[in-house]
Amino acid sequence: MSYKTMTRDELLKLRDEIEGQYNDLKAKGLKLDMSRGKPNKEQLDLSMGMIDTLAATHELVGEQGIDCRNYGVLDGIVEAKRLLSEMIECPIENIIIYGNSSLNVMYDTVARSMTHGVMGSTPWAKLDKIKFLCPVPGYDRHFAITEFFGIEMINIPMNSDGPDMDMVEKLVSEDASIKGIWCVPKYSNPSGISYSDEVVRRFARLKPAAEDFRIYWDNAYCIHHLYEDDQDHIIEILDECAKAGNPDMVFKFCSTSKVTFPGSGIAAISASKANLDFIKKQMTVQTIGHDKLNQLRHVKFFGDFNGMLEHMKRHAEILRPKFRIVLDTLEKELGGLEIAQWTNPKGGYFIALDTLDGCAKKVVSLCKEAGVVMTSAGATYPYGKDPHDSNIRIAPTYPSNEELREACEVFVTCVKLASIDKLLENM
Amino acid sequence: MSYKTMTRDELLKLRDEIEGQYNDLKAKGLKLDMSRGKPNKEQLDLSMGMIDTLAATHELVGEQGIDCRNYGVLDGIVEAKRLLSEMIECPIENIIIYGNSSLNVMYDTVARSMTHGVMGSTPWAKLDKIKFLCPVPGYDRHFAITEFFGIEMINIPMNSDGPDMDMVEKLVSEDASIKGIWCVPKYSNPSGISYSDEVVRRFARLKPAAEDFRIYWDNAYCIHHLYEDDQDHIIEILDECAKAGNPDMVFKFCSTSKVTFPGSGIAAISASKANLDFIKKQMTVQTIGHDKLNQLRHVKFFGDFNGMLEHMKRHAEILRPKFRIVLDTLEKELGGLEIAQWTNPKGGYFIALDTLDGCAKKVVSLCKEAGVVMTSAGATYPYGKDPHDSNIRIAPTYPSNEELREACEVFVTCVKLASIDKLLENM
Repeated sequence: MSYKTMTRDELLKLRDEIEGQYNDLKAKGLKLDMSRGKPNKEQLDLSMGMIDTLAATHELVGEQGIDCRNYGVLDGIVEAKRLLSEMIECPIENIIIYGNSSLNVMYDTVARSMTHGVMGSTPWAKLDKIKFLCPVPGYDRHFAITEFFGIEMINIPMNSDGPDMDMVEKLVSEDASIKGIWCVPKYSNPSGISYSDEVVRRFARLKPAAEDFRIYWDNAYCIHHLYEDDQDHIIEILDECAKAGNPDMVFKFCSTSKVTFPGSGIAAISASKANLDFIKKQMTVQTIGHDKLNQLRHVKFFGDFNGMLEHMKRHAEILRPKFRIVLDTLEKELGGLEIAQWTNPKGGYFIALDTLDGCAKKVVSLCKEAGVVMTSAGATYPYGKDPHDSNIRIAPTYPSNEELREACEVFVTCVKLASIDKLLENM
Repeated sequence: MSYKTMTRDELLKLRDEIEGQYNDLKAKGLKLDMSRGKPNKEQLDLSMGMIDTLAATHELVGEQGIDCRNYGVLDGIVEAKRLLSEMIECPIENIIIYGNSSLNVMYDTVARSMTHGVMGSTPWAKLDKIKFLCPVPGYDRHFAITEFFGIEMINIPMNSDGPDMDMVEKLVSEDASIKGIWCVPKYSNPSGISYSDEVVRRFARLKPAAEDFRIYWDNAYCIHHLYEDDQDHIIEILDECAKAGNPDMVFKFCSTSKVTFPGSGIAAISASKANLDFIKKQMTVQTIGHDKLNQLRHVKFFGDFNGMLEHMKRHAEILRPKFRIVLDTLEKELGGLEIAQWTNPKGGYFIALDTLDGCAKKVVSLCKEAGVVMTSAGATYPYGKDPHDSNIRIAPTYPSNEELREACEVFVTCVKLASIDKLLENM
């Protein structure tokens, strides 16, 4: 029965009941965590072969005769380029392999633009005002980068098929101080939705006022499907931009952080040759080259891209039950109550739940009191400010299934409690 | 016999003879390289145990219970901090462990200062003019970083015990636009000289006009001795700065690039707590953490710092004969001719040779024609401009001993030829 149709007395009675349940849960002294988009131990164990692969043969010379132990090779060994270019769906000429963190690549991309501009444009540090569009809810670490550089962030609402493109098109074409937009186009963080073909095409056909406007296309979950028979596919944007006459408008990012080891993966940027040439001018000053042994380790472990896809199926087998636990609990406990909406992603690492307006902070704080850590309310918005105080990111991957069941029980109880209070308050 | 005392006729006759030798060498069609400060294959083989160490036990949990495969630990696992803090001679609280490249750490340090200043100072990008002092000859990649950011570089002559400190003290105390000085204090690149106690103490006692002036102390060769019984020792500058009332004035850098694998080492910065706190504010936006498995790999391979020192003795055994070959050839072929001076380092990766003024470019170009690649003349100076055109960096580490003998023969022949031409020209 919907909470919204309840009378004040009914709600007060219900409140007593739910509060009792909440206090019982609190008394358990739980210590659980659904805040982190981290692979669990079982997932990490899938990649233990990567620890062994170089030791097995001691073959450390790459296919182009390069001793991967020594200095050199600025943009990555060719076999690693091949592997990640298949992953990120770009020609091998359009990729640079970096170190262990795509976040670091994105940071560097913005930092370089601040001091050196983009392909010859004015350094952003010399401009009065720089703005980025931020589809919301989104990834807090993206927003942290732009905030760190004093870049003004503008919220763009997310629809079920991607960002509000009417708003994106209008702003980008009118305001030359808008230099970028953060996107997680597939199984996006935190909602798990994927951009429709039409949305990707509208991105590719943007007519930005700023010549140095770029789409920051963080393809973090490009092969991170949950189901073999029900997967999202998005159009390849680099090619789409080229076809639309905007060949230089996009930077694509990816990494193997959630494929092999989160701390010890390899990352990549993919872009037009003109963009990569500009980036390499900086890279050549910044480093002699990234860790080629780790690149080789990845290549030898997977063999080829098919090996990587097979590997991802094993991740999915571990993650499916976890998403199931969360979604089943939400449906069973909150379905029909009209106090929350949530997404049902086909991949990625998160489920997003929207409470009634003004309840998210309360829910997260109630969870914390009961020993369940959630991602901070507001974290999915620039400056940590969710204007509706309603979005909560649920990260089901790290806890064990048993822990997840307990954590979800606490979570739904807190959603109920906070919602009742909010409804009572508004009566 | 000194070339300088020869008559024109004697020089012309000698020229015919040397030119004949040069042409004979050229006819050999050699393809040799003395340009790169790269470890050779035999050195790399010393660290093959690092490839095996994690595979041997699959123990990937650090001593603080951290699963090194997963996300987390921004500033390095404690056991890696301990190892590198002993290497760089600082307390474990004063170190941050980075990825595979100390060059990248230095780049980041300057880049961050451009956009965010140093410990709260005005971002350098907002200032009209920024300058760095550059002891010369020095390391081309240092100069490339400052040039990339449009920082004006001022040459500081190197004496046999370090930079000209009279000049450093005067400039630093008078000019607030001077924000840094690049130093390789031990077995410096390219001359191999080490700073005296007095020079280090004068550094620590500097009274910079700029509050955000820092000494960029690149301790690249801190444990890279050639001899067990004849080693340079330099005073620890972090502690010396603290004693002099300048606790925040220095950034120290080091890496294991020339200890284990050049492409796959670990790097570190060491500085005061106030500096590190400021740096961590940026790091936390830039990355979730560097490759902890590679940190663990280093720790397990060496066991402790003594293991690392033993390992360096094996490097020295391989490198000593190479330095010997170069120095013996220089002494035998150029000794007493008064056309060149060179250094005799006790460690590091280079020997620096000074030709007569105006000869370095010619020597390098003659070498190239005869199939021997040397570091470009001028590379050891900011903007690639050696005002005397006399300094040449010799890198003996990478070629085999046989190749090195041949390359040195070509090199000394080219020095003779270019010197004779210069002497004739000046007659």
